[in-house]
Amino acid sequence: MRYPEINVAYLNENYLKLQAGYLFPEVARRVREFCEAHPEGARRLIRCGIGDVTEPLPPAAIEAMKRAVDELGHRESFRGYGPEQGYEFLRSTIAQRDYRDRNIQIADDEIFISDGSKNDCGYVLDILGSQNKVAVPDPVYPVYVDTNVMAGLTGPARKDGSYEGIYYLPCTAENNFVPDPPKEHVDLVYLCFPNNPTGAVASRAQLARWVDYAQEHDALLLFDAAYEAYISDPEIPHSIFDIPGALTCAIELRSFSKNGGFTGVRCGFTVMPKSVLRWSTKSNSVAYPVQRGAEALYSAEGRQQVSELIDHYMGNAKVLRDAAADAGLEAFGGVNAPYIWVKTPDGVTSWQLFDRMLRELNVVITPGAGFGAQGEGYFRISAFNSRENAEEVARRLKSLRSS
Amino acid sequence: MRYPEINVAYLNENYLKLQAGYLFPEVARRVREFCEAHPEGARRLIRCGIGDVTEPLPPAAIEAMKRAVDELGHRESFRGYGPEQGYEFLRSTIAQRDYRDRNIQIADDEIFISDGSKNDCGYVLDILGSQNKVAVPDPVYPVYVDTNVMAGLTGPARKDGSYEGIYYLPCTAENNFVPDPPKEHVDLVYLCFPNNPTGAVASRAQLARWVDYAQEHDALLLFDAAYEAYISDPEIPHSIFDIPGALTCAIELRSFSKNGGFTGVRCGFTVMPKSVLRWSTKSNSVAYPVQRGAEALYSAEGRQQVSELIDHYMGNAKVLRDAAADAGLEAFGGVNAPYIWVKTPDGVTSWQLFDRMLRELNVVITPGAGFGAQGEGYFRISAFNSRENAEEVARRLKSLRSS
Repeated sequence: MRYPEINVAYLNENYLKLQAGYLFPEVARRVREFCEAHPEGARRLIRCGIGDVTEPLPPAAIEAMKRAVDELGHRESFRGYGPEQGYEFLRSTIAQRDYRDRNIQIADDEIFISDGSKNDCGYVLDILGSQNKVAVPDPVYPVYVDTNVMAGLTGPARKDGSYEGIYYLPCTAENNFVPDPPKEHVDLVYLCFPNNPTGAVASRAQLARWVDYAQEHDALLLFDAAYEAYISDPEIPHSIFDIPGALTCAIELRSFSKNGGFTGVRCGFTVMPKSVLRWSTKSNSVAYPVQRGAEALYSAEGRQQVSELIDHYMGNAKVLRDAAADAGLEAFGGVNAPYIWVKTPDGVTSWQLFDRMLRELNVVITPGAGFGAQGEGYFRISAFNSRENAEEVARRLKSLRSS
Repeated sequence: MRYPEINVAYLNENYLKLQAGYLFPEVARRVREFCEAHPEGARRLIRCGIGDVTEPLPPAAIEAMKRAVDELGHRESFRGYGPEQGYEFLRSTIAQRDYRDRNIQIADDEIFISDGSKNDCGYVLDILGSQNKVAVPDPVYPVYVDTNVMAGLTGPARKDGSYEGIYYLPCTAENNFVPDPPKEHVDLVYLCFPNNPTGAVASRAQLARWVDYAQEHDALLLFDAAYEAYISDPEIPHSIFDIPGALTCAIELRSFSKNGGFTGVRCGFTVMPKSVLRWSTKSNSVAYPVQRGAEALYSAEGRQQVSELIDHYMGNAKVLRDAAADAGLEAFGGVNAPYIWVKTPDGVTSWQLFDRMLRELNVVITPGAGFGAQGEGYFRISAFNSRENAEEVARRLKSLRSS
């Protein structure tokens, strides 16, 4: 996704509707200014803001990628353009391991390999056209809203940062951050569980209500399951396709960013049941070595190594959530998800708390208001860190209470 | 770029305008049918169709990618999300080596790393909006037309496969396949030199006429320089920015696919002068090991190895062009470009000749008509092959004459 400033004559006026400052660049700007002004604070700085992984890639993926790179260095094993939807070896591994082994009937050719689900979000909107009524959770991953703005599916922005023409689904402590379907008709619904930013998970019954709604309204569910690997509760579905009927009304987006640590390697996939959309692509897919690396995450060693990564980050999540509670803060999430969603104390705003934690604790968090109007009064702590850093943040949180 | 068939309610009606059958899938379909029906022909088959490289990656790139993968396997050297526009090490290397060393003032932050210029073509259209009048050469790389169709910048298709609302620039033997600017006003012009499919190159004077036109009409030139490494004539510009004034009216697209053999590795870049467009992106760019591999193409060894690859493919181009001439065919291109553009004999159509070469010679070429109405009566031979295959195709071409 790209945010331009344009000097040429004709341009897509939808881009002009975008609210200045994507959340994460604004966070980065404030951190940079703080660090320039306070060198000693800069040295103590711990980042729990952006959900970027910190631990090295699983050895199985490293070895597979190096082998694949070597293959490209020899004429006999060289590969040029790959299949447009991704290599068969990876598509079939995903369909088997993530779906058919779990009794979900997804065919190999319903898996589309991409360099991350962010781009596929945009492609789906391109295909669907601009006459659809869209519902998004609030708070929400900002990319979902911004891609709709740029694609012309919204009206202008309001003062609170929300856009006219979008149907917002409030996610609040009252509904445990899992919204129910609206009474009104919408065509396209974004759902993300385990949730970014709130760390909430949806039960089978809650997801079933959404599938029922989609069937009744001929709506399409765009289900982001990027964090499914963090689910430990056996009752919580890992996929929207765990729900009967979803195969005719849902598209699922997944990523290797957060299970295999592929944020810098770039690989994800979209599950597009033929009963929803016959999607043939003419993209050139993803680097061959990257696809071999992703495949290796499904080997016996790869699965074990991914599981250790998840345990590491979820260990951090427990440390951080407990520390927030000890500091007298009301904390949500962090149990089946690597994000902790914390209520700011004493009616402080999200950005006020952001600035205070930066200044006083030298800890970077993400202000909830950046994810939507309902995020005001909350902040997100990311568990993606070293254990040492997570424990140090936990110690510093104590002084937030007393300050 | 993705071509969907859709079962859901609302969809982008522009997709419905797309002509059935992207060129290369249709070629693939006919080849598959032939091979199934003629196993012995299938065994002899030589593909000179799609412009995909055949030689292994330069060793400098292999070593750099493996080192980078190893870095991702250790906590101290691990990298997560990379900078959105690409790593500084690669952006500065490109700006210095490809531009400033050649006296073209491009800043590091005017280089945007992508996974191939195909996607950036689409992004540019998204930004520009749908009210622009677009000019494309005919024949042309089909992606340029199709992205415009999907973005809603054209009317419906005509019987000959062209689209209403696009201004076509005929590239014929009469103008040496280099079109002059039109008398009419257009807003956006696609140019590609060295050209795919014709192998033509544009002189400094010819490009200067386009820059003049763009300045006069406030038009934007989208210049595809993917094949610049194949230029041997020192008088031919490698970049549109070699032309004074282009920095205010042109965007250049480049790729490591054809110089470094990166078709399966996926890396390219867009040069976007700040005087044209301030482009900030929120994509997640390209795998770190891939960017290290691209950087290595600029090292002393890397440059020598790329130069050997170019010599190899251009050696094939000479063999194939000479063979076409020996067979009594009129051949263009293949001198500063890896494509030879050949007139079909005796008024045979492009697809007739495609079928005949497949059946009689067991050689796959690309029918010119697939690139546009002006491509009818021509075919493209790709020089991307082993020398052995190129020489065998040259031998077989002789029998085309006598048959």
